[in-house]
Amino acid sequence: MTQDALIERLSAIVGSDKVRTDADSLQTFGKDWTKVYEPKPSAIVFPKTTEQVRDIVLLANECGLQLVPSGGRTGLSAGAVAANGEVVVAFDYMNQIAEFNAVDRTVKCGAGVITEQLQTYAEEQGLFYPVDFASAGSSQIGGNIGTNAGGIKVIRWGMTRDWVAGLTVVTGKGDILQLNKDLLKNNTGYDLRQLFIGGEGTLGFVTEATMRLTRPPKNLTVLVLAIPELDDVMKVLNQFQSSMDLTAFEFFSDKAMSKVLARGDVPAPFESNADFYALIEFEAITDADMDLSMSLFEQCVENGWVVDGVISQSETQAANLWRLREDISETIAQWTPYKNDISVVVSKVPPFLREIDEVVTREYPDFEIIWFGHIGDGNLHLNILKPDALPKEEFFPRCNKVSKWVMEIVQKYDGSISAEHGVGMTKKAYLPYTRSEAEIAYMKAVKAVFDPNNVMNPGKLVDM
Amino acid sequence: MTQDALIERLSAIVGSDKVRTDADSLQTFGKDWTKVYEPKPSAIVFPKTTEQVRDIVLLANECGLQLVPSGGRTGLSAGAVAANGEVVVAFDYMNQIAEFNAVDRTVKCGAGVITEQLQTYAEEQGLFYPVDFASAGSSQIGGNIGTNAGGIKVIRWGMTRDWVAGLTVVTGKGDILQLNKDLLKNNTGYDLRQLFIGGEGTLGFVTEATMRLTRPPKNLTVLVLAIPELDDVMKVLNQFQSSMDLTAFEFFSDKAMSKVLARGDVPAPFESNADFYALIEFEAITDADMDLSMSLFEQCVENGWVVDGVISQSETQAANLWRLREDISETIAQWTPYKNDISVVVSKVPPFLREIDEVVTREYPDFEIIWFGHIGDGNLHLNILKPDALPKEEFFPRCNKVSKWVMEIVQKYDGSISAEHGVGMTKKAYLPYTRSEAEIAYMKAVKAVFDPNNVMNPGKLVDM
Repeated sequence: MTQDALIERLSAIVGSDKVRTDADSLQTFGKDWTKVYEPKPSAIVFPKTTEQVRDIVLLANECGLQLVPSGGRTGLSAGAVAANGEVVVAFDYMNQIAEFNAVDRTVKCGAGVITEQLQTYAEEQGLFYPVDFASAGSSQIGGNIGTNAGGIKVIRWGMTRDWVAGLTVVTGKGDILQLNKDLLKNNTGYDLRQLFIGGEGTLGFVTEATMRLTRPPKNLTVLVLAIPELDDVMKVLNQFQSSMDLTAFEFFSDKAMSKVLARGDVPAPFESNADFYALIEFEAITDADMDLSMSLFEQCVENGWVVDGVISQSETQAANLWRLREDISETIAQWTPYKNDISVVVSKVPPFLREIDEVVTREYPDFEIIWFGHIGDGNLHLNILKPDALPKEEFFPRCNKVSKWVMEIVQKYDGSISAEHGVGMTKKAYLPYTRSEAEIAYMKAVKAVFDPNNVMNPGKLVDM
Repeated sequence: MTQDALIERLSAIVGSDKVRTDADSLQTFGKDWTKVYEPKPSAIVFPKTTEQVRDIVLLANECGLQLVPSGGRTGLSAGAVAANGEVVVAFDYMNQIAEFNAVDRTVKCGAGVITEQLQTYAEEQGLFYPVDFASAGSSQIGGNIGTNAGGIKVIRWGMTRDWVAGLTVVTGKGDILQLNKDLLKNNTGYDLRQLFIGGEGTLGFVTEATMRLTRPPKNLTVLVLAIPELDDVMKVLNQFQSSMDLTAFEFFSDKAMSKVLARGDVPAPFESNADFYALIEFEAITDADMDLSMSLFEQCVENGWVVDGVISQSETQAANLWRLREDISETIAQWTPYKNDISVVVSKVPPFLREIDEVVTREYPDFEIIWFGHIGDGNLHLNILKPDALPKEEFFPRCNKVSKWVMEIVQKYDGSISAEHGVGMTKKAYLPYTRSEAEIAYMKAVKAVFDPNNVMNPGKLVDM
């Protein structure tokens, strides 16, 4: 198909003002936050309805086009990068929030609704959308669903998967499916909705979703604890979790915190230092909750697990304590960190982390390792900082070697090579470290059912 | 294959003492709680390991056998009935609980572990397995997973789906898959685990599952309220749910309660009567929780929604109040009730229920209708009692007519023809009222991926 014919056919579907081929748009909409692949889409198309998406998919099947979905483009695995002349389907105009239902506590969103837009909308209704993460200001609901986005509150509220009441999707065959009809209980065979959640747009594109909301948390209170021994972090987790419903249990290393503190705009939580810190958040609804948390804290001190701690007395203090954890990513960005997003079951975190730390330190003693993550979920963000003196060209190939070692350790510990960032293109080669050969074969067969001509986000997740 | 050859081949896999063909066993293991189909299995086989299950599946593929899984046989949709000479694979010997992990709060169970066995085990560890329902004393974990069992605590703790950390399954092709490795976060492509949950054994059999446990609830307290108007039941739900985390919100009609009270062994909750009652359960951890519930109750009275109410002051009182709801099923069993297990989104419950009630009452004024259910989930159990004078032979054909009307109303309200009981054989004809033609076509194609020779529970859910 010539470029002119392509533009004509796409324009016939969405209108000529909703097809872009200028260099800027191709560059912007052809990529996500990864910088590994050069974007090279052939066109960007902006549908406004599910039916237009269907017509684009039918055209793709007819003419052998390949389609890449584009949401907030905040992905970290190149799941939404168009590097091979694909047509990018951008959901920016499908950003309506509609049909709020106060009794069901659900809200219907176009795929292009921005996470923060939904969070704010929920707040305005006196409710709460609990999935939250650093890119909430730009990421879109469709992308969140495609990658089953997680974030900082998973321990209490789960992943995006847990908040999807119903989905409208266009499959790779061009069928429009209404999945689950927003029901809480619906045991009528295979829950196909679950395949599209986390499916990275490879089976079809989500065009609309009904999301659940919940009651807002009350008086979220933050404890930051200094914990010298990694094993004791897990004991502290267990101690707190067995008597309280935590809303977050995050951790970060002293190296991570010292980078944040060095910026000078976040106060140190206390004078003590320890190799690790835990950030615990909970609802202090009554004084009893506060008392319980203090008594748990004291027990942790008595047991020798914790050497210092601080508890927030106000929302501002809570926000400042959160910055110790949340500012890490942005703070270390200047060192061009090599990132891995891995997970194991919670109980295996200490030996798993130690083994990776040892291997990297042994092989590359000049590399600085920054650990942080959602330790209550077993999800660790491993960040390796580029030594200032080392050129990028040497740093990244050495990191690729590190990745191989890391993935082998992930496999040894029955872990996940991608806890929350998805597979896309950058993790594809590592998929067999988490999923068996047989599983991958079934995944390909499932893909062929929904997208027999491989038009939906080809080259992501699995190769057909 | 001759019967002798069949027994020989099966015995070679599991040992001759684990193959039964006596009339009693065929009758017992060939059916579930439904009484619609006559059991006619050709043999019952009792594997003890996942590998034995795999070998049975391979044999089925080789020799054209058809396999039906058998758990606690408490199903209500004939999902585990072997009516066509199938070989029944019974999981009774795969009932080991192993590998409890206190930090991860997970426990690995054989498919044959009984729900109550898991609940008790959790309690012994100071933890809680929250999925609970009437058949917990006999239903097995494998069956719970195959049907995504729900029950009375879904509003707070979700369905079985939410507690499955990892699965071992044998697919219809005879592959053993370890799905999800018990991880909390694992975004590595299609979550195949979700297909087997609620898949009714039609894609493969679950042989082992890692189940999550949680902290036990504290001081569960029960409120029963008398509510004259159905619409006000929803308002009460909304009022409570917006300020408290409820663990149950059940409802039953006055007709339902009067049957239970007539037995004489459960005390009446109060002197007032109303058309509907709501049973609300919550954790009263502190006095503040109790105070809040009382103030919500008072607001409901002031608004004119509630005319009377009682709150439990002890565990015994709470248990007695629960009996008002939980004894309904058993109490009405003597009237050979015709049961439907249907759901809509919560906000649609009142018009939905009224419309069904009106149609049935108009067409069959001699039928008594008993409503109860998990109204907080939009899940209604519609029970039609057989008039004493009407013979069964006339009652059931008339009920089949009712079913058709009910299903049409379900479809009109975008509801589910099976909220928690699954599809099996008895609901198969009604599947198109909830799932579209396209969805059913995809379901069949997915089935063909995992079970190309249709050996796994054939004739259930969909016809191939």
